[in-house]
Amino acid sequence: MARIVLKFGGTSVADMDRIRNVARHVKREVDAGHEVAVVVSAMSGKTNELVGWARDASPMHDAREYDSIVASGEQVTAGLLAITLQGIGVDARSWLGWQIPIRTNGAHGAARIEDIDGSEIIKRFETGQVAVVAGFQGISDDNRIATLGRGGSDTSAVAIAAAIKADRCDIYTDVDGVYTTDPRMAPKARRLDKISFEEMLEMASLGAKVLQVRSVELAMVHGVTMFVRSSFDDPDSIDSGPNAKPTGTMICSEEDIVEKQVVTGIAYSRDEAQISLRRLPDKPGISAAIFGPLAQEYVNVDMIVQSVSEDGSYTDMTFTVPEGDMEKATKVLEANKEKIGYEIMQNDKGLVKVSVIGMGMRSHAGVAATAFSALAEKGINIRAITTSEIKFSVLIDADYTELAVRTLHTVYGLDSAA
Amino acid sequence: MARIVLKFGGTSVADMDRIRNVARHVKREVDAGHEVAVVVSAMSGKTNELVGWARDASPMHDAREYDSIVASGEQVTAGLLAITLQGIGVDARSWLGWQIPIRTNGAHGAARIEDIDGSEIIKRFETGQVAVVAGFQGISDDNRIATLGRGGSDTSAVAIAAAIKADRCDIYTDVDGVYTTDPRMAPKARRLDKISFEEMLEMASLGAKVLQVRSVELAMVHGVTMFVRSSFDDPDSIDSGPNAKPTGTMICSEEDIVEKQVVTGIAYSRDEAQISLRRLPDKPGISAAIFGPLAQEYVNVDMIVQSVSEDGSYTDMTFTVPEGDMEKATKVLEANKEKIGYEIMQNDKGLVKVSVIGMGMRSHAGVAATAFSALAEKGINIRAITTSEIKFSVLIDADYTELAVRTLHTVYGLDSAA
Repeated sequence: MARIVLKFGGTSVADMDRIRNVARHVKREVDAGHEVAVVVSAMSGKTNELVGWARDASPMHDAREYDSIVASGEQVTAGLLAITLQGIGVDARSWLGWQIPIRTNGAHGAARIEDIDGSEIIKRFETGQVAVVAGFQGISDDNRIATLGRGGSDTSAVAIAAAIKADRCDIYTDVDGVYTTDPRMAPKARRLDKISFEEMLEMASLGAKVLQVRSVELAMVHGVTMFVRSSFDDPDSIDSGPNAKPTGTMICSEEDIVEKQVVTGIAYSRDEAQISLRRLPDKPGISAAIFGPLAQEYVNVDMIVQSVSEDGSYTDMTFTVPEGDMEKATKVLEANKEKIGYEIMQNDKGLVKVSVIGMGMRSHAGVAATAFSALAEKGINIRAITTSEIKFSVLIDADYTELAVRTLHTVYGLDSAA
Repeated sequence: MARIVLKFGGTSVADMDRIRNVARHVKREVDAGHEVAVVVSAMSGKTNELVGWARDASPMHDAREYDSIVASGEQVTAGLLAITLQGIGVDARSWLGWQIPIRTNGAHGAARIEDIDGSEIIKRFETGQVAVVAGFQGISDDNRIATLGRGGSDTSAVAIAAAIKADRCDIYTDVDGVYTTDPRMAPKARRLDKISFEEMLEMASLGAKVLQVRSVELAMVHGVTMFVRSSFDDPDSIDSGPNAKPTGTMICSEEDIVEKQVVTGIAYSRDEAQISLRRLPDKPGISAAIFGPLAQEYVNVDMIVQSVSEDGSYTDMTFTVPEGDMEKATKVLEANKEKIGYEIMQNDKGLVKVSVIGMGMRSHAGVAATAFSALAEKGINIRAITTSEIKFSVLIDADYTELAVRTLHTVYGLDSAA
């Protein structure tokens, strides 16, 4: 017997047929003797509909009202799944964020979970009741509904798993696991059996969309083993017995991974823009003068490269921002031109950041060098490079995205045999 | 300055344009210096969509889950109206049933309000904040959302008005008041300026759909003056100043109505069925033998007529039930045939109950006799008659509905001059 949290996203509960399919997944786990909590998202499309109305009502909407509106989507799904489970003989009840309660801070629209009281859910496990939890929502100190931001149901699921000390948190989604890279980009992508929290965190941060970054962080902190698996598999063909291993990708501690790969996966992130400030005075405080005002305007600066002229009198500063923020960023920098002291500002859109991730980089030297020469051989120009302990990223023209991803996938031995 | 509750039904908040129109009505009252609470229904069609899903999930659904699902509709509208009000410079916040709280009993799906804490809403009136309350919902003892049953938002509005000691409860709807009868049926129907709680209660119970019966009961008990008025009027053309009188129908205590009419209105209720049990033994307990089993199966019996044979040895019992219940009723009666002891059962569908309502009947004799002769003159056969202190009803074939309503409307002097 295990205690399991199952999470189903919007496409997995898109209509009543899909919800019935989810109920069969849940029943299978219950029949296998497990204690089960289920976390559900809103039916796909519903959140967008609600967000659309809220925007139409007023573009500068009150985040507390916005939260109350959009959280209703998960409320509906949770109730429907509870009813559906009851209909097939599984005792179940729905739980809204304020009923559990899932306490959050007051950052409405992007709230963080502060505390979850899992005691009532655990108590009801003893009578065999399944808890169906509305994802994405909690209650803030002022007794109002707070949402966790888009994709927050993953975070809800992991937080619930931590609160009830679950053995596992299964994230059911429309793909059957985490791949070495996006299979639409590289047909030779392989599904990973296991990936460490740290690697998954980098993959998610660097563009892989299968999981929300915060949910992985939370799982890492609380040691919650996650499984990414498909909700589209036939529920009845899956073994949930005591020795069964789910088909999918396990996200776990590094120690639980015996055969470590040097490189685990390739991620990419589109819509990057590059801004270069030329002929800056090379003096202390110049970084603060540039990035302080940008941070104040909530521009997310990513890759930063600084190069000093031969005689050391001038410096160039190049960095990336999300393409959608470029206009705002250039305005901020123009307004601060005198204070910063640059002579020329240049910018470029249509760039992509390709990242190579692997725990093995810690112990293997020269991993990045392999990439640089492989890309050079294909004639792909690298505009910027950043590295950290377990990953490195290169900024390239978007036209070369597929070529770069496939080249790196091959050169690091990730291609499937097929 | 007055304290006013405004209630807007589903068609009045059907889309964002309609919600913006509602916001202008609210702003007008706020600008006139009034303290305002608004109660809203779900966008029209939304509740049916949610109910459809719940039924699809399982026909025998858990009422607590059903409530959590359907209450989300009002949650959305309340948030959207709050945002819209903020957008036009009116301070507002939404309130869900559990936030106020509106305490109900545990009869999920048709819960009754037990207590409302209006203190926080009143406190915020002092700072000029408008309370936007999600109608139709409360919270039961077990900390779960409970709904008041269809049309429950009218009841929410009156209950809120009583709790915050409002001067008035304005029910905005898609008609501009209460009419002497259904204007679609009788083009000469007139809008009433005033109607007493008692008369309105009879009108609503006997078929007039403009208000929910329970809301009128509640208003009568708590002495909450109601106004039925149109949400489709141009908000800016309406005067809400201190001496302004809303255009519509006031529902108030009898004492507030100076010129009392003998007859105030004509209501009708379609889809009635008649069941006759012939040649029953005329002995004590016969009524209990018939109506006990029917009550147990939740069949609503309405008009009952008993006639005894000339020699007093037998009796016939005729009564009406809603057409939708007829099959169930006949089955129950067949199963109890021996116990009841009737010889023949007959039934008829396609009947209509036409009712004449007026406080004046208390003091005027012979009011009903006028109707009987007027209907006889038109060749309309009366199948059954019931009377009470302030109304009488006749059961007729549905084919004659229009003719009967128009005839009675004319004969009691209700026709408009135009």
